[in-house]
Amino acid sequence: MMTFREKLAAARQRNASQLCIGLDTDIDKLPAHLRTAADPIAEFNCAIVEATSDVVCAFKPNIAFYEQYGNAGWEALRQTLACIPEHVITIADAKRGDIGNTSAAYASAFFEYFNFDAITVSPYMGADSVQPFLTRPDKGVFLLALTSNSGSADFQRLVCNGKPLYRHVIEQSLAWTKYDNLGFVVGATHPEELAELRTAIPDVPLLIPGVGAQGGDAAATMKANGTGPAVVNASRAVIYASNGRDFAEKAREKAEEYRAMIGA
Amino acid sequence: MMTFREKLAAARQRNASQLCIGLDTDIDKLPAHLRTAADPIAEFNCAIVEATSDVVCAFKPNIAFYEQYGNAGWEALRQTLACIPEHVITIADAKRGDIGNTSAAYASAFFEYFNFDAITVSPYMGADSVQPFLTRPDKGVFLLALTSNSGSADFQRLVCNGKPLYRHVIEQSLAWTKYDNLGFVVGATHPEELAELRTAIPDVPLLIPGVGAQGGDAAATMKANGTGPAVVNASRAVIYASNGRDFAEKAREKAEEYRAMIGA
Repeated sequence: MMTFREKLAAARQRNASQLCIGLDTDIDKLPAHLRTAADPIAEFNCAIVEATSDVVCAFKPNIAFYEQYGNAGWEALRQTLACIPEHVITIADAKRGDIGNTSAAYASAFFEYFNFDAITVSPYMGADSVQPFLTRPDKGVFLLALTSNSGSADFQRLVCNGKPLYRHVIEQSLAWTKYDNLGFVVGATHPEELAELRTAIPDVPLLIPGVGAQGGDAAATMKANGTGPAVVNASRAVIYASNGRDFAEKAREKAEEYRAMIGA
Repeated sequence: MMTFREKLAAARQRNASQLCIGLDTDIDKLPAHLRTAADPIAEFNCAIVEATSDVVCAFKPNIAFYEQYGNAGWEALRQTLACIPEHVITIADAKRGDIGNTSAAYASAFFEYFNFDAITVSPYMGADSVQPFLTRPDKGVFLLALTSNSGSADFQRLVCNGKPLYRHVIEQSLAWTKYDNLGFVVGATHPEELAELRTAIPDVPLLIPGVGAQGGDAAATMKANGTGPAVVNASRAVIYASNGRDFAEKAREKAEEYRAMIGA
């Protein structure tokens, strides 16, 4: 069995890519000709996956976009995962985190029922809320540290005992697993902090969202990241590159552009 | 249209109860005779609801327990909600929180698709991750402040600029809504901090979990809370009071015991 880090390294190497495409699929933004399909979301996602799966290292479905459609959304997510080739990492962007027995149920939902390779988790509730996601060496966690949104300034940057909260999160949580299956979310909108972090944790996987629609600069991000293992996510800028019949083709062009900027 | 606070006050008054029953329904813990039912979770939940809906002010399905069964779990959740009488508050224990457009999709899932009255939200990502849940005066948010689990000591109690993080969360977030639709989660395992908080926010609704299986003491909790509006949750201690054919009857007995300890 490959460990999570081995799977991630293999995925990056195979397509010479650190690009992750976020599947934040919203029915209202789909090309008109797909909206009347039997399952428009799954059809759209599978077309994007087919067009781009040799350009990326990961796909990251954003779970909110599926939950908002209830059963139909849950089924679309299941079908989407079935389209993704095994050599590409799948990340459930779920930001879960709850008391132990509840986090264990979430881990079961995303690692067993859906068979994702990794999940994003929120650290607010501490060790026993995160550890149930860290019990399998082949499954990874990206713990929220310094997120890409403006609200990251509200609490994550609060200085507690001489350093910002997000540094406490990183330093404490690294002791919560005996496997190398913990990484962090650090937004592309914070290149200075990213560079500083890389001196402390040069070889820990980072999920870096915020390139594209959220305004993060790809070149500055990659310079700040250096050679550390990164999964750089773009969502809307890629999947909605066109809303015509050429949407998958245009998404591939955009994905190739990003890969070129991001590198392997 | 009643506001969230009005709905909550009416629900507490009608049944003279501040008790919330948490529906953390796990197939492995169900009475044997139910496990072969067509939809064992919905059947169990609806029996519990029917036996207790005149003893509580709220039901709180724990979303993880439904997600772990995929489509079937989502359907069981929908059916459970259909069993709950309109005068009882429903709280989605979901602990969501993400960048703005994603939180908006979660709000749509829980407030529109499932029509919950309230949701639990995690504050880690700051203002723009919480505000999309606060746009409707008739729907409430319980934001995580000081949770009942041991991990609450890891970050929530970190002292930042002279006060613990959870106090920053409470003080900042109260400015994030123009409606009176924001409350907080404060665990029953922290009666001292609860009492202190009530001097600062005497009339803000608190969701207080951790009574029962998690070890919180009901009498100490209510003394600390005083007369502030509270929703006191017990889950496993009530719903699994018996695993025989009398499970609903025993759950009602246990719920009545808790109501007597908690008061109105």
